Amino acid sequence: MTEKLIVFDTTLRDGEQSPGASMTREEKIRIARQLEKLGVDVIEAGFAAASPGDADAIRSVAQVIESATVCSLARATEKDIRAAGEAIRPARSGRIHLFIATSPIHMERKLRMHPDQVVDAAVKAVRLAREYTDNVEFSAEDAVRSEMDFLVRIFDAVIQAGASTLNVPDTVGYSIPVLWGERIRQLIERVPNSGKVIWSTHCHNDLGMAVANSLAAVMNGARQVECTINGLGERAGNASLEEIVMAVKTRRDVFNCDSRIDTTQIVPTSKLVSSITGYPVQPNKAIVGANAFAHESGIHQDGVLKHRETYEIMRAEDVGWSMNKLTLGKLSGRNAFRTRLHELGIVLENEEMVNDAFARFKELADRKREIFDEDLQALVSESVVEQVSEHYRLVGMRAHSETGLLPLAQVRLNVGGEERIAEAKGGGPVDATFKAIEQIVHSGAELQLYSVNNITSGTDAQGEVTVRLSKGGRVVNGQGADTDIVVASAKAYLHALNKLGNEAERAHPQV
Amino acid sequence: MTEKLIVFDTTLRDGEQSPGASMTREEKIRIARQLEKLGVDVIEAGFAAASPGDADAIRSVAQVIESATVCSLARATEKDIRAAGEAIRPARSGRIHLFIATSPIHMERKLRMHPDQVVDAAVKAVRLAREYTDNVEFSAEDAVRSEMDFLVRIFDAVIQAGASTLNVPDTVGYSIPVLWGERIRQLIERVPNSGKVIWSTHCHNDLGMAVANSLAAVMNGARQVECTINGLGERAGNASLEEIVMAVKTRRDVFNCDSRIDTTQIVPTSKLVSSITGYPVQPNKAIVGANAFAHESGIHQDGVLKHRETYEIMRAEDVGWSMNKLTLGKLSGRNAFRTRLHELGIVLENEEMVNDAFARFKELADRKREIFDEDLQALVSESVVEQVSEHYRLVGMRAHSETGLLPLAQVRLNVGGEERIAEAKGGGPVDATFKAIEQIVHSGAELQLYSVNNITSGTDAQGEVTVRLSKGGRVVNGQGADTDIVVASAKAYLHALNKLGNEAERAHPQV
Repeated sequence: MTEKLIVFDTTLRDGEQSPGASMTREEKIRIARQLEKLGVDVIEAGFAAASPGDADAIRSVAQVIESATVCSLARATEKDIRAAGEAIRPARSGRIHLFIATSPIHMERKLRMHPDQVVDAAVKAVRLAREYTDNVEFSAEDAVRSEMDFLVRIFDAVIQAGASTLNVPDTVGYSIPVLWGERIRQLIERVPNSGKVIWSTHCHNDLGMAVANSLAAVMNGARQVECTINGLGERAGNASLEEIVMAVKTRRDVFNCDSRIDTTQIVPTSKLVSSITGYPVQPNKAIVGANAFAHESGIHQDGVLKHRETYEIMRAEDVGWSMNKLTLGKLSGRNAFRTRLHELGIVLENEEMVNDAFARFKELADRKREIFDEDLQALVSESVVEQVSEHYRLVGMRAHSETGLLPLAQVRLNVGGEERIAEAKGGGPVDATFKAIEQIVHSGAELQLYSVNNITSGTDAQGEVTVRLSKGGRVVNGQGADTDIVVASAKAYLHALNKLGNEAERAHPQV
Repeated sequence: MTEKLIVFDTTLRDGEQSPGASMTREEKIRIARQLEKLGVDVIEAGFAAASPGDADAIRSVAQVIESATVCSLARATEKDIRAAGEAIRPARSGRIHLFIATSPIHMERKLRMHPDQVVDAAVKAVRLAREYTDNVEFSAEDAVRSEMDFLVRIFDAVIQAGASTLNVPDTVGYSIPVLWGERIRQLIERVPNSGKVIWSTHCHNDLGMAVANSLAAVMNGARQVECTINGLGERAGNASLEEIVMAVKTRRDVFNCDSRIDTTQIVPTSKLVSSITGYPVQPNKAIVGANAFAHESGIHQDGVLKHRETYEIMRAEDVGWSMNKLTLGKLSGRNAFRTRLHELGIVLENEEMVNDAFARFKELADRKREIFDEDLQALVSESVVEQVSEHYRLVGMRAHSETGLLPLAQVRLNVGGEERIAEAKGGGPVDATFKAIEQIVHSGAELQLYSVNNITSGTDAQGEVTVRLSKGGRVVNGQGADTDIVVASAKAYLHALNKLGNEAERAHPQV
């Protein structure tokens, strides 16, 4: 009989720790809703103790999610556990995910605790967490460099204290499949009552082996995998949800388990996460890369034509690749618009937001013949963004560039209710625009990254611009979409500035 | 004793098969020179029989490379082998890489050959190839789905015929590490005289496990890995050179071998390949992604400060990440320019190209305060591109956009010596520019992809635009760089059009 593989998605927690990928409450809710549609079992929505904003986002996700478990991370301290417990309270099914480091190097140099103290802290933490929920997960941070005897001891202790999921993370992405599988096998063999809990793994991708390590764990008895959409996450990221799910599904002959993921939602989820975080997916990324199912070579195409299976082990449509579906045009009415949003799983919180999005839609339809699902996603992102908190807003702008002359831009901004205007020259129209904005704003922020992707193909496609700004050690991403790349750039820059102005500092843990 | 791991780079062959990544002769030479600097053992430079252009590119690479073996792929046919043999003739060390499919599904449906005929063809092919070189590699295409007994039989036969490297490819990216390692182990155990040859593996990344499968092969006796820079390649790509090399190096405790790669050249090579092919590297890509060594979380940063090893298993500088080095400015002279190009390993073929590049440098320095290495790379790419064949050339342009109005662009092109001018409106200044170009050119090509990355950080950075056009089943990438994103877009569009006009159709094989 095929056993169940629990998919624990941490896009909203570990994924969010990618530089500049921090999300607003509304963005987290949108992604969480899509994750629910995708069929993940557990959504780790954040780290409640990091900031009141984080706790609030987890609470909001817990309120809207119906079929998945909503989880908050917590260090093994009373403050963290109480924050997590309160944040998940509205969830139909809530989990507290505790962690403490168990490797000699971490215990000594980071925690400055004796191993006995670490075991004590873990046990106390589990007991306290159980006051809030029966669903408590315990992670041994840096398990990859922990001593096996100590892992057995602490896992035994936390099972007795009431943990029901035990997670074994490769925090630094150091392991390789044959060793990682063996580690999981030994733990399950040696820890008393190991059959009464779910074993989980959480792998990082520093050497490119997060997915393979996770799968090696599954082959050796792990029944929960912690992963993120697009492999998002700090440094080289976490294990990719889409790769793990499709490997298990494609190789049912080897894996004795399967997830309940609706694989046709994989690509839409990937696109949503990429769009909200501003993290592009490279074309040669497995499953969700633009080329993942594209075939170039003549011989190969010949093979594909002669017999599909000669080169294909999966079908593009099974993971949600489809041609851009034409959804709406200039003449589409308000009802058609609302219906399509509903089909896309986009929920706008109030009538004002629907009105705003519809007005943007009409404006876009004047400039762009065909409106695709991706355009709608971008429209709605903007509406949501602006509702949140918009100290700076673009009223109007113009830009002129000509070979041989310095490009010139003029921007009109609404700054906290007051209209301001400025003009600047620059190396290009985008540079000139940013300089004009800075003449008004004087943020002193540093531009770390600027990138553009078109949302759909065709020359009248909207450009989606991502701007990453840093200031005083903080990093934020801003997005803007428009058929005019210079306008999209201005929007993205202002979005980033508004985020810089709003976000409180947050601490992020490492698992 | 640590054994040697042979690094076989196929960026110029299998990597080139990525849609739109086909390279000119000059681009291949630039990458090959960098691969030599990186220290790869074998450079697969192309597939000679695909077209006279391919054969010519291999010959040119063979002429300039001194320390690496230069290789051409060939099917097991006389025509292919003779083309390959001729193409590698100028090499100090040349190899012919033969392949034939060995899985039932491929033999039956693609080759339409009986297994006996396949063995015969392979043996004859190896004998013929040996007339050109002692260095013959044989690949069993789709080995992952081949029968073990048949693999043993055909490998035994080609060893007797004179093959010195036997390659076991996972052509469709279907395997998982534990199975792939076992397959390699069994082959080495069962094939007679297996100790007299080098065993190799070539893995595809469809399920995200190309690197892990390659390493499983290495743990079981393979001593050559076939891989590409950035994991470039059809569909989800090939195994990443950088991940394999760093895994073997970082985990010397497990792998009984090491490569002779100069790891500090990894990031420069990655950037060069990305820039030439137009294939971006996602930020959360292991080793070469922009975030691979970036740390975000507060707790984590604290850990890093307290003790570096708590979260780092590799050092950024070991793989060639360094701060952008300020290299040149407005006042830098011709000698400084030439010296820096030399240090970067950029060789311009004649004085005219140096002059052209220097003129571009001066022009850029007027608009951009600091010129970084990446800017020089982009400058030179343009010079080289234009030398090749430039039917369409941008003479001048202007673009104007203003909120509430339709953007307008005017372009002046030199078309085969004659100056033409056109004006168009569009959804944005880039769209208007492309439409104006099309009014002159009437290519009928379809825009498949448009993306922008800045070459360095800062607001006056150059934007590097990639445009992918398709027409009649052919796909090309064009690149353009400029501080003005609209001008860069026009350059990229024209670059793609020039490629479309020049390239002959080529067949590409699949291994």
